[in-house]
Amino acid sequence: MAKARLVLEVMILLVVLAGNVSPWVLDVLEGSSSRYCLSWRLAVEANNMCAWRTVPPQCLHHVENYITGSQYRRDLDLIVDQIGAYVDGIDMSGDGMDAWILDVDDTCISNLLYYRGKRYGCDPYDALGFKAWAARSECPAIPAMLGLFRRLIEAGFKVILLTGRNEESLGEATVENLQSQGYIGYERLIMRSAAYRGQSAVTYKSAIRKQLVEQGYRIWGNIGDQWSDIQGEFAGNRTFKIPNPMYFVP
Amino acid sequence: MAKARLVLEVMILLVVLAGNVSPWVLDVLEGSSSRYCLSWRLAVEANNMCAWRTVPPQCLHHVENYITGSQYRRDLDLIVDQIGAYVDGIDMSGDGMDAWILDVDDTCISNLLYYRGKRYGCDPYDALGFKAWAARSECPAIPAMLGLFRRLIEAGFKVILLTGRNEESLGEATVENLQSQGYIGYERLIMRSAAYRGQSAVTYKSAIRKQLVEQGYRIWGNIGDQWSDIQGEFAGNRTFKIPNPMYFVP
Repeated sequence: MAKARLVLEVMILLVVLAGNVSPWVLDVLEGSSSRYCLSWRLAVEANNMCAWRTVPPQCLHHVENYITGSQYRRDLDLIVDQIGAYVDGIDMSGDGMDAWILDVDDTCISNLLYYRGKRYGCDPYDALGFKAWAARSECPAIPAMLGLFRRLIEAGFKVILLTGRNEESLGEATVENLQSQGYIGYERLIMRSAAYRGQSAVTYKSAIRKQLVEQGYRIWGNIGDQWSDIQGEFAGNRTFKIPNPMYFVP
Repeated sequence: MAKARLVLEVMILLVVLAGNVSPWVLDVLEGSSSRYCLSWRLAVEANNMCAWRTVPPQCLHHVENYITGSQYRRDLDLIVDQIGAYVDGIDMSGDGMDAWILDVDDTCISNLLYYRGKRYGCDPYDALGFKAWAARSECPAIPAMLGLFRRLIEAGFKVILLTGRNEESLGEATVENLQSQGYIGYERLIMRSAAYRGQSAVTYKSAIRKQLVEQGYRIWGNIGDQWSDIQGEFAGNRTFKIPNPMYFVP
């Protein structure tokens, strides 16, 4: 029996190496070579990695497979289910000040098409390249998040989109991109104005959230793909971190 | 070729079903049936699941395989590497007040043997059962964390162990357990005294950390397997969440 097993395992390897294998087999086999990358990605999502600059080169295919494959969508779906259960339990005031905060990039709309050209984050951050991409207003909606956005609005929440994008250079493009992708009916889109230039996302977003709370908004939830979206002051009654193994925003 | 592939895949299934397969093959094949559980575990570690009570029944084998297998150890190793890199960069004062805080249960020492009898968290929390287990002083050290503990002490940090265990009923057993497992040389072991009974871990641990900071300690790092170990006030300059998919402490 041991010999039969060895023969089978060698056959698996040969077929996989020849590229002649069903996606599901490839998918599960890929898991075995990417155990380090699984650990790395878990550490990123659990906020154990601080200020990482690029995806480790050996994790290029792992990150590509994850973010373009079904697991990323499943991970998002489960988080959105959790958010939904929380939303259902919120006792709203009816005064129109019950708010949610959503980040924009890789929370509402996806930069995956851009990051494909940056080897899914294995290449370092390219400020000019990203700006040129964002100016094209071609980020597609992340379907699970668009569904959640609509649900929040239907439930009567004021949805506030809060992004580190530069207001002056990317304001119009961002408004257009959000609208074309179906993000309609939000309360406000808050972008980074000159006063906040150079500040970390935590500092800038905390300052904005403080203003919102002072204006009377109750921040029931706050959703972002970066820990810097949901850390700091006035973070919200509950925060949710959606996955992003491609880049880190301080 | 399509037929050959089908034959191979059927063979894989048959051999797996017969139980005659190498652990690595089983391991990667297991991945395909546990995509939901991967999402669930990621959501737990990223603090997207709040106040969950038990492991979903369909994830029993996933959690068992994870926590008893190599991936948990790899995940820990990567976090400990990150902590080590951070420790190396700390400029210590030399006044003896540079401190680290470590949680005890499933951070320093493991309750895996106990949770095996609780279907790895699929059974609900059993306060009496856990107390009886902890009183036996038989929790083994988690090797990666014991190594880190020793490294912190050698580097000159004051390591403070902070646990929600009841001081009165489990004080002696905990001291004995830590000592027998090699946790020697810590600055203090702080357990829950009567004054903090009934408080959430966040409230209790924040209050203790506040006292430590008032006593002059600089909390450089804070490590726990629960988000409630590392949330709240005076959390520390950096916090680290080590994996625990078996239970949730509010």
